[in-house]
Amino acid sequence: MKEGLKIVTIGGGSSYTPELIEGLIKYNNELPVRELWLVDIEEGKEKLEIVGNLAKRMVKKAGVPIKICLTLDRKEALKSADFVTTQFRVGLLEARMKDESIPLKHGVLGQETNGPGGLFKALRTIPVILDICSEMEEVCPNAWLINFTNPAGMVTEAILRYSNIDKVVGLCNVPIGMEMGVAKLLEVEPHRVRIDFAGLNHMVYGLNVFVDGVSVKNQVMSLINDPEKSITMQNIHAMGWEPEFLKALDVFPCPYHNYYYKSGDMLEKELKNYKEGGTRAEVVKKLEEELFDLYSDPHLASKPPQLEKRGGAYYSDAAVRLIHSMYTDKCDIQAVNTINKGAISSLPFDSAVELSCIITKDGPKPIAVGDLPIQVRGLVQQVKSFERVAIEAAMNGDYATALLAMTINPFVPSDRVAKVILDEMLEAHKEYLPQFFNL
Amino acid sequence: MKEGLKIVTIGGGSSYTPELIEGLIKYNNELPVRELWLVDIEEGKEKLEIVGNLAKRMVKKAGVPIKICLTLDRKEALKSADFVTTQFRVGLLEARMKDESIPLKHGVLGQETNGPGGLFKALRTIPVILDICSEMEEVCPNAWLINFTNPAGMVTEAILRYSNIDKVVGLCNVPIGMEMGVAKLLEVEPHRVRIDFAGLNHMVYGLNVFVDGVSVKNQVMSLINDPEKSITMQNIHAMGWEPEFLKALDVFPCPYHNYYYKSGDMLEKELKNYKEGGTRAEVVKKLEEELFDLYSDPHLASKPPQLEKRGGAYYSDAAVRLIHSMYTDKCDIQAVNTINKGAISSLPFDSAVELSCIITKDGPKPIAVGDLPIQVRGLVQQVKSFERVAIEAAMNGDYATALLAMTINPFVPSDRVAKVILDEMLEAHKEYLPQFFNL
Amino acid sequence: MKEGLKIVTIGGGSSYTPELIEGLIKYNNELPVRELWLVDIEEGKEKLEIVGNLAKRMVKKAGVPIKICLTLDRKEALKSADFVTTQFRVGLLEARMKDESIPLKHGVLGQETNGPGGLFKALRTIPVILDICSEMEEVCPNAWLINFTNPAGMVTEAILRYSNIDKVVGLCNVPIGMEMGVAKLLEVEPHRVRIDFAGLNHMVYGLNVFVDGVSVKNQVMSLINDPEKSITMQNIHAMGWEPEFLKALDVFPCPYHNYYYKSGDMLEKELKNYKEGGTRAEVVKKLEEELFDLYSDPHLASKPPQLEKRGGAYYSDAAVRLIHSMYTDKCDIQAVNTINKGAISSLPFDSAVELSCIITKDGPKPIAVGDLPIQVRGLVQQVKSFERVAIEAAMNGDYATALLAMTINPFVPSDRVAKVILDEMLEAHKEYLPQFFNL
Amino acid sequence: MKEGLKIVTIGGGSSYTPELIEGLIKYNNELPVRELWLVDIEEGKEKLEIVGNLAKRMVKKAGVPIKICLTLDRKEALKSADFVTTQFRVGLLEARMKDESIPLKHGVLGQETNGPGGLFKALRTIPVILDICSEMEEVCPNAWLINFTNPAGMVTEAILRYSNIDKVVGLCNVPIGMEMGVAKLLEVEPHRVRIDFAGLNHMVYGLNVFVDGVSVKNQVMSLINDPEKSITMQNIHAMGWEPEFLKALDVFPCPYHNYYYKSGDMLEKELKNYKEGGTRAEVVKKLEEELFDLYSDPHLASKPPQLEKRGGAYYSDAAVRLIHSMYTDKCDIQAVNTINKGAISSLPFDSAVELSCIITKDGPKPIAVGDLPIQVRGLVQQVKSFERVAIEAAMNGDYATALLAMTINPFVPSDRVAKVILDEMLEAHKEYLPQFFNL
Repeated sequence: MKEGLKIVTIGGGSSYTPELIEGLIKYNNELPVRELWLVDIEEGKEKLEIVGNLAKRMVKKAGVPIKICLTLDRKEALKSADFVTTQFRVGLLEARMKDESIPLKHGVLGQETNGPGGLFKALRTIPVILDICSEMEEVCPNAWLINFTNPAGMVTEAILRYSNIDKVVGLCNVPIGMEMGVAKLLEVEPHRVRIDFAGLNHMVYGLNVFVDGVSVKNQVMSLINDPEKSITMQNIHAMGWEPEFLKALDVFPCPYHNYYYKSGDMLEKELKNYKEGGTRAEVVKKLEEELFDLYSDPHLASKPPQLEKRGGAYYSDAAVRLIHSMYTDKCDIQAVNTINKGAISSLPFDSAVELSCIITKDGPKPIAVGDLPIQVRGLVQQVKSFERVAIEAAMNGDYATALLAMTINPFVPSDRVAKVILDEMLEAHKEYLPQFFNL
Repeated sequence: MKEGLKIVTIGGGSSYTPELIEGLIKYNNELPVRELWLVDIEEGKEKLEIVGNLAKRMVKKAGVPIKICLTLDRKEALKSADFVTTQFRVGLLEARMKDESIPLKHGVLGQETNGPGGLFKALRTIPVILDICSEMEEVCPNAWLINFTNPAGMVTEAILRYSNIDKVVGLCNVPIGMEMGVAKLLEVEPHRVRIDFAGLNHMVYGLNVFVDGVSVKNQVMSLINDPEKSITMQNIHAMGWEPEFLKALDVFPCPYHNYYYKSGDMLEKELKNYKEGGTRAEVVKKLEEELFDLYSDPHLASKPPQLEKRGGAYYSDAAVRLIHSMYTDKCDIQAVNTINKGAISSLPFDSAVELSCIITKDGPKPIAVGDLPIQVRGLVQQVKSFERVAIEAAMNGDYATALLAMTINPFVPSDRVAKVILDEMLEAHKEYLPQFFNL
Repeated sequence: MKEGLKIVTIGGGSSYTPELIEGLIKYNNELPVRELWLVDIEEGKEKLEIVGNLAKRMVKKAGVPIKICLTLDRKEALKSADFVTTQFRVGLLEARMKDESIPLKHGVLGQETNGPGGLFKALRTIPVILDICSEMEEVCPNAWLINFTNPAGMVTEAILRYSNIDKVVGLCNVPIGMEMGVAKLLEVEPHRVRIDFAGLNHMVYGLNVFVDGVSVKNQVMSLINDPEKSITMQNIHAMGWEPEFLKALDVFPCPYHNYYYKSGDMLEKELKNYKEGGTRAEVVKKLEEELFDLYSDPHLASKPPQLEKRGGAYYSDAAVRLIHSMYTDKCDIQAVNTINKGAISSLPFDSAVELSCIITKDGPKPIAVGDLPIQVRGLVQQVKSFERVAIEAAMNGDYATALLAMTINPFVPSDRVAKVILDEMLEAHKEYLPQFFNL
Repeated sequence: MKEGLKIVTIGGGSSYTPELIEGLIKYNNELPVRELWLVDIEEGKEKLEIVGNLAKRMVKKAGVPIKICLTLDRKEALKSADFVTTQFRVGLLEARMKDESIPLKHGVLGQETNGPGGLFKALRTIPVILDICSEMEEVCPNAWLINFTNPAGMVTEAILRYSNIDKVVGLCNVPIGMEMGVAKLLEVEPHRVRIDFAGLNHMVYGLNVFVDGVSVKNQVMSLINDPEKSITMQNIHAMGWEPEFLKALDVFPCPYHNYYYKSGDMLEKELKNYKEGGTRAEVVKKLEEELFDLYSDPHLASKPPQLEKRGGAYYSDAAVRLIHSMYTDKCDIQAVNTINKGAISSLPFDSAVELSCIITKDGPKPIAVGDLPIQVRGLVQQVKSFERVAIEAAMNGDYATALLAMTINPFVPSDRVAKVILDEMLEAHKEYLPQFFNL
């Protein structure tokens, strides 16, 4: 029997990596990771070195027996892995900037995970992730793939439908962020909060909210009307909610729901930022530069607090908690993206959904939801339709399918505007879209 | 055994009535209608007289033994009816004008059947239709209710859920209009065209299109890209479609889909009309006045051709064909609104849907559709969610539920704007919304 | 464009063929069949000649321009076919005798279509039908396959799941026989009777029964309690029903339901016959010999009335009516075996079911049923589970799968008895079960 | 806030009660029960006293602050209860004897929970449990009802459908018995075993079996072929399985599956016992008498080991574990009977099912199963159909419905035999069936 676990992180040069290291150090007693391979591409070599060296310093300082390995050879890294995590971004932040700015130029929200931007992120990412799956099938067929790469829902579904890897879990920090937000709002310890999550990635609802098993949903709902108390994320501007809307909605929306129930206001705000020269991507770019400056400091041997501004709060915690529960067959409840298989009756049986699951060594087991409440059901179903068509376009590289996906995206006002945005984005991302350009 | 059939038409003073008379005359050999009761309210008495007298002249001229009875006493009229048709409009055209103009004032499409306007039409209409159902239960429990009153889908579902009448069929002229449009486009006789319809009222797709049983869908789809050849209705401006969008959509959209796949363009156009002083409601109002002028002519004894501009083309044909097939147990195929019961797997089991059915004496029997194609599934599901919440608001008269319905309507950009429109419309329609004002 | 239709009948030497010829003659005006190929195997050559010559005499006498072609070369016959009908029996009547007698020897009903006998019929037949499908794919990919070969439900499902042919319809004479039976019982013309069929092959119920569109179900149900008036088939002994059972059942059972709701009595009766030396197969064998004696008479040029005793009454009518409606896109209602696609919510989406369909040029379109009534749902579901496992065994030739199918068959009392019967039947049918013996 | 919990046990005079006491004592630290009310009927007064006094001695000896209250006044007892457990038997063991012996007299398995005997147990029990629910609604609307009374599945479903109590959990010792059996078989500690349960009460399968999160299903399945190692219960004779049947079945059957996959053998064995003068009920009766003799001993202050022979092993553990997890919101996994809500796609949405759930303060949350494997799906569905019709008969007291339920029970060979058994059992249980006799 192999001694200890081998984890491989694709996109290891990401600014998020120190969080992961922090988590692995924290759980090292129960989760005996012995090797962590950080993999990146040629273009990200410098960042990989910076982050990798910080990781080595962190591990050394903590005195844990984790060997950090840096490499550009992905397949070599994957060999005999136990867990593979993916947090890469095809086209880097430059691509994200285009994902956000091109739609905005045409008066449309880019929304880099579920909007027109998210469509292109899917088109760029899915072929790469399926390559990784092929390699895994060959060199580590028993490994679990823990995907953080956005759009995490679409990526997970593409893997489920089009790869031979079925040991995949899609992970997002939105659910854990909502639980943390509730804990803070109610001033209770986070472990006492439990939310029944159901929906899709970045389109998840808390069907109920508990403290110590007692529902506090109504209390939470009446508090978050207030923009000051709204539970949101670094990258989403909190605007509060109409109290009566929230009362009738009767389920706890996630921060991304601002894009749907306040699309007009969000568009206005993003257009303003855009004109003033700053999409979120640009803000993030600056943040990242600052982070890498910090990471380069040879005296730094811990995760710097500035990372939290980055928007990825709790990613580390979520990821390591997940791997830990899987490894120990802990059977605790965590919200992840996995195959539906009837857990949410209102969504396709074989689609990826995001919901509360029991985490076992045999993977996540969804807790049955029944039908989504009628008031949110249609929106979730609509986004799933978009996701499915987007995935199909990512696979077949067909212009008409991509135009269809763009047109049925909730943010896009017409087939005509869809075509304009599509054409410009296809051109802009050409080098990352071999399936559309027969590259 | 009773001799001949008794039909009762609620809202009998409508400008559409002459079409109905024309149909009853045409089918009189096989459909032995002996009494037609035209019922209206005090406010519509004058129109009822004008239309009723025209009806009498038409019947007399045709020499058919149909007795036309005019009354304001609805319950009296309903006694022992065989078929009850409903084509009334609560609040008359004035209400429709508000349904369209108030949202436009706030930059939002009113869309009088599925938009914010449709929401208010539902809020006004559902209580009245449920009253009619109560009376029917009492005085003609075996009658079939053929509802044309819009929003026909929501009204049908409200009856199915909240009345004791289950012999109800919702009827719309969109499907027959699409078949007629295809016949004209391909220059074939209408009876040779068959479309497999599935979806919701004003949200119906032709999943396939046949001439003599052979699919011509692709041919039709390649023709309707051209705005000149687009199949549309009097009240919807044809704009043509992006050819590649339509190719990937792969199903034949109905005219109302312009509101969804071209909401930006439709809004722009309606805002322009609005500023130039003319919503569709105002155009219709003028048309109606002209029609009633014509109807008043004591020499007129047939349906005047001007009625076709009104937007209700083929209503008469659709209605009488339906009643005829039910009466004769004809088992032909017609598209109507009826309870789903699994015919469309992607929609709730107990909801009203619009789809091709076999028409029998025992009512319409849906032809099973399976799942809606993924590319259109989400939109249809979203509209159904809206419909369900709207119906709930119509029943409970709860402000928060109405705000929820308004916010999740696809045309409404935010909870904030929803509230503004809602408040103004509630005030404007106050007299027709007893459930909201405890009247 | 090809002139006229080409029909190919696999198992053309069957004693049923004269019925088919009779039907084709009757409908020849509207169904322009120009070639009918009767195909059989070497072993059936003599019968093929006898039947083929009778067919030629019938056609000649009728003066219709149908060319009858006899051949042992199946693939040659299939070329450019428009419709392929299958009515062959792998292993001939000898195999059926074993299907019935081996289980009886162990005190178990053989039931040659859904029982242990039916399991073996499926194991023998499915590989052959899939071979035919492969040939069709190659030489007549646009043809429709009309399968009468039993077990028609399992065979249809096997084709749907495991061949590339999706233009397949499974046909049985039970539904038409039930309609004819009701017509006779109520003394009305058959075309006035309509039954809403739903279930599986040989496990179909009339959910409602109409004359001229008016339900007569209760009347029919109260009559068929009487064994004299029970609607049954040549091959099933009518025993009448407990009136109160039938009243609560509330749907019209098919003759094969005697095997399920009276399995004890049926077993007793069949054991008695068996001991007295006559399974149904043996009776049929004698009937067939008599029929072929008649067919050999060169003066015979019409279907002899004795054929009706054979148990295949109305097959001809059913088959030709079906082909006729498909060819003419008639859109009438007929009950066939086709893919479910949600028409019966209680059965798998992708399974073959038997139910009332609209018959179009594009194939049968099921009329949606919703859920089967709870009282019959479980039995139908149980038989479908058996069918699915039986099909799997037919495909994988795995002993354990076959034992599982045998054990879960409703007639088999234990895994132990299942094994005994299975072993003996495998040995007895060895030559027709290449998948189990690596032949 | 109330101090401590109040538990009420209906049928408190049962011989099982000492197990419950033992459990409450064991968990008293975390589950602060302060009052335990044992309720019984006049007829059971003596037993109640005996058991109640033993309970008092046990509590005293253990030194826990639980007050034991004995009463015949059920409604008084229910006041402000936190948990109500039901373990009564309408008609006592005499009724069970009839449930088993009358069918056997006619050559049919009685099977006191899912067979003809179970049907009558349901007919007697459901009216009583609904009375209890009415009282709970009035005097302890927030209490949870933990039902152990068999047939636990049907009783739970009847409560869900026909009472206003939705806080109900049906509990059976079969799942815990299977986990204990596996632990013993593999010689591991019970807490390391986890089985994914799905199905119905007494018709539950282990879809997978884990030790420390690693599947051991195949190992278990290959061991239990051996009758010596078969996992069974006191009241079911172990006969082992055909190894290849079990291999293809591919899921772990429960002891009651012997009645379905070995009905012939079980019948033979029970007939033999019956002729030799001993149904299981009679054995149990003797055991009970012995137990009450023991319980009467004023020196006894603990659960006597002889209780384990009674067949109710682990009931105490199951019940107290369940209440403990609910009270503490433990979120561990236990198998119970609860409303399906899509967790098992193959069974009705609103039916009671038995499956692995997360146990929270808010009740059990099913872990989604998807479809049951096809090979077991049909049997489970068939039994659910029977259960539903049986419940309907219990509610409407209609002879025809009861005959239908009896006929479609898997053990009953015909409508004719069903009628004979039904008539005799109705007569025998007359006094407990007011709904059938207008009492």
